[in-house]
Amino acid sequence: MRRSLKAFLCLAFLFAIGARGSEPPQTDKKSAKTKAAIRSVLDAQRDAWNRGDIEGYMDGYDRSPKTEFVGGDSISRGWQTVLDRYKKNYNSREKMGTLTFSEVEITLLTKDAALVLGRWRLKRASDEPHGTFTLLFRKTKAGWRIVHDHSSSA
Amino acid sequence: MRRSLKAFLCLAFLFAIGARGSEPPQTDKKSAKTKAAIRSVLDAQRDAWNRGDIEGYMDGYDRSPKTEFVGGDSISRGWQTVLDRYKKNYNSREKMGTLTFSEVEITLLTKDAALVLGRWRLKRASDEPHGTFTLLFRKTKAGWRIVHDHSSSA
Repeated sequence: MRRSLKAFLCLAFLFAIGARGSEPPQTDKKSAKTKAAIRSVLDAQRDAWNRGDIEGYMDGYDRSPKTEFVGGDSISRGWQTVLDRYKKNYNSREKMGTLTFSEVEITLLTKDAALVLGRWRLKRASDEPHGTFTLLFRKTKAGWRIVHDHSSSA
Repeated sequence: MRRSLKAFLCLAFLFAIGARGSEPPQTDKKSAKTKAAIRSVLDAQRDAWNRGDIEGYMDGYDRSPKTEFVGGDSISRGWQTVLDRYKKNYNSREKMGTLTFSEVEITLLTKDAALVLGRWRLKRASDEPHGTFTLLFRKTKAGWRIVHDHSSSA
């Protein structure tokens, strides 16, 4: 009897551990926390942009040579390249305007990857460019960061 | 001695199974196979498009009300909505032209999700529209399918 109980317990333990094999869906609480962390990166980006701080805005992107920014027909690779592109396209406070994000939807793909869809809008003195964005966030050592940004405009 | 050997084997087994807890990176062979499967979906889309078969092209998208197509300022939701948009924008063989994809890069995120970046081009009698795309593929019951498409043009 004791031997078969031991065998049963051992099997039950194996099943319990084996169940971890397929990645468990995040609990509601955990996924709400993850979404809030990602949302706070976007909020920090918006705030940095709106005080004219492009480098602060760029903190939302992974500081990696693999980080990608895609828009129109252009693919920019590397954190520095993306920064240079922003600095060139928005070389004055007037051009930067006031940035807002809306209709932000965060889809968690795994515990360290999420897809984010949303709309962006720049309020400027003379115009109001706007469009959509698709972001891939990865959880890095520095926290959740954008590794891929595909943005388009109306 | 036999008892401690048994305990050792049991522990080794537990470790081996426990190691599955964090999702294992796919082996080179497995990931090459996954990338080939995704690539073949894109090739089938291109072939369907180039014989004027928009419904066949749409087979590459997940038949779900959550499937998203994003471009410019517009977000289309649902497989049927995306199909209707394509049918409206490409309502003649001439408008469809000849589609090619290039510089396709597939990044596996998990065993059932992948990000795909690439360029598209339509050769038509009078013009040659082209641009970039970011796709999120998920492994569905029907195979690898696009659940999110953000495309932009030059």
